[in-house]
Amino acid sequence: MLEESRLLVEAEFRRLFAACKETGYGPLYDHLAVYPFREGKSLRPAILISTCTAMGGKTYQAITSAAALELFHNAAINHDDVQDVSDFRRGEQTLFRQLGVPIAINVGDATNVLAISLLLQNVEKLGVRKALQILREFERMSRESVEGQAMDLDWIRTGCFDLGDQDYINMVYKKTCWYTTIAPMRIGIICGSAVKHSGSLDDYLQDTLELGFATGVAFQIQDDLLNLTADEVLYGKEISGDLYEGKRTIMLLHFLRSASVAKRDRALNILRFPRREKTAKDIKWLHREILNHGSIEYGQKIARKFADRAIALEPKLATFMQHNAGREFIREVLNYMVERLK
Amino acid sequence: MLEESRLLVEAEFRRLFAACKETGYGPLYDHLAVYPFREGKSLRPAILISTCTAMGGKTYQAITSAAALELFHNAAINHDDVQDVSDFRRGEQTLFRQLGVPIAINVGDATNVLAISLLLQNVEKLGVRKALQILREFERMSRESVEGQAMDLDWIRTGCFDLGDQDYINMVYKKTCWYTTIAPMRIGIICGSAVKHSGSLDDYLQDTLELGFATGVAFQIQDDLLNLTADEVLYGKEISGDLYEGKRTIMLLHFLRSASVAKRDRALNILRFPRREKTAKDIKWLHREILNHGSIEYGQKIARKFADRAIALEPKLATFMQHNAGREFIREVLNYMVERLK
Repeated sequence: MLEESRLLVEAEFRRLFAACKETGYGPLYDHLAVYPFREGKSLRPAILISTCTAMGGKTYQAITSAAALELFHNAAINHDDVQDVSDFRRGEQTLFRQLGVPIAINVGDATNVLAISLLLQNVEKLGVRKALQILREFERMSRESVEGQAMDLDWIRTGCFDLGDQDYINMVYKKTCWYTTIAPMRIGIICGSAVKHSGSLDDYLQDTLELGFATGVAFQIQDDLLNLTADEVLYGKEISGDLYEGKRTIMLLHFLRSASVAKRDRALNILRFPRREKTAKDIKWLHREILNHGSIEYGQKIARKFADRAIALEPKLATFMQHNAGREFIREVLNYMVERLK
Repeated sequence: MLEESRLLVEAEFRRLFAACKETGYGPLYDHLAVYPFREGKSLRPAILISTCTAMGGKTYQAITSAAALELFHNAAINHDDVQDVSDFRRGEQTLFRQLGVPIAINVGDATNVLAISLLLQNVEKLGVRKALQILREFERMSRESVEGQAMDLDWIRTGCFDLGDQDYINMVYKKTCWYTTIAPMRIGIICGSAVKHSGSLDDYLQDTLELGFATGVAFQIQDDLLNLTADEVLYGKEISGDLYEGKRTIMLLHFLRSASVAKRDRALNILRFPRREKTAKDIKWLHREILNHGSIEYGQKIARKFADRAIALEPKLATFMQHNAGREFIREVLNYMVERLK
């Protein structure tokens, strides 16, 4: 399903980029195509498309929106890379390292424009009512995402580590959950819903928001846990990379709250420096202290709480979804997302 | 009219930002409000609103779109400032100098999201048909703008000065004309048009595109001319600032084509360095050579050609606009834009 979604979305990209190049300034679209064709998991389009088919819709009704969602994601990671001064993305140099900051920013902007272009094509494909409803979901998702990003960037700029679990969860809800789980499912529901559903649609969308929230938070905490505990070869990312970046995680925040004043001060002194000024010795100390303070177990407990909530909410989908392959994939992918530590 | 439009649009901003702050992450919207409330000319909203009333529409039908257009403009200048590493905007520090590159990029992104939020509110205000048509205009405008920006940034990155007038005009058409003259008029026409117009609307929109193109190019060349010739006190910008920036203008490109190989090489050597590495002596030499090669007169001739074309096309508006204050303002503002050198 992941592979199939990726191929469908890539075909949509090829069609769109070719049309843009035909009438517009070609080199822009060559730069724009770089990230979308670097292989990713394609998790979000797959969730959107299979939610649509689980609602009884056809795959073609979801592809345009799935491709728009993936473009939004690619625009976001492009600007993220500039904001975080990242060197690599999906195993290759980041776009801004290849072409400079100005072009990378513009390519991100253009990628967002093309997401809107695609969503306007939904008018012919799905009719005015659904097309507008999807545009509204997209607008909400984009607004939540820039708010989540704003929270994160404000914490970094002000060197703020005095944060509770609720701050972290609220940031993740906005920055991660909306575009990773909530919007893909909600837009999939709209794409695939029959007219007879339209009365109760708001209820389904609300259920999905709660399920997507619980799933997304469990997913993100587990991602943060993996960064502290996983096997580097298996995980594919640099272990403790989050500590180098000073990323606020449930585990780090727990450690900072539990540590003695002296240790807390030492940790903050390490964290507040830019990535390049942190030494491997500092990071090793920080990593060991996080382990010693039971912060891993604490993070696992919180992740478990959200995973349990997601598992409890998931059967609600059966009240409006059909029993088919799309539904089965949704169940499996949600389970994978909340249980992948095991 | 400019002042009235500014006040209407600012009231719309206040309403929108307050609503966003109420449910969302407040500090983002405080940062987002910085540029929109720094006083600008408000040219684009005024053109949009008076085109709407010239079509027989009411002001309130245009305000939401005018505010969206102004937000788009503010997002663009925010990202522009990062791309050009500019220190000042509208007489104060640029946002990225105040808050850093990451937050400035995110604020630009958020500003674009709010433009879309406003355009979706048109559904209730203007009905589905017009709201979608305006969204399509906005999408086209955004796409042209990022393409124009891409052309300009590619020339800068590759150090390309081997350009003809047509390259410059094509870039200005995309980067300046679309969001300064073409889209404001076209969206104004859609906002204010009566149902009886809908058959011939495409013709009106096409006429407007041609008029907006001629006006916008004349406007931009005159802006570039002012930068080389105007009185610094009256103009309010640093004279020869464009030469420091290495900005491709009709005049500079004409000089480079007309100069001897030795002078051309010396000029390129100056232009290819970043702004801070150029000396006042270099710029003085370049400025004098541009004057000596008749490049000012050449630029004036091209600007005149586009101004004449705009003046010849303008009466076409009478075939579908009413004789009222809105129409009068459009005539005056277009005249101002193409004749402001005198």
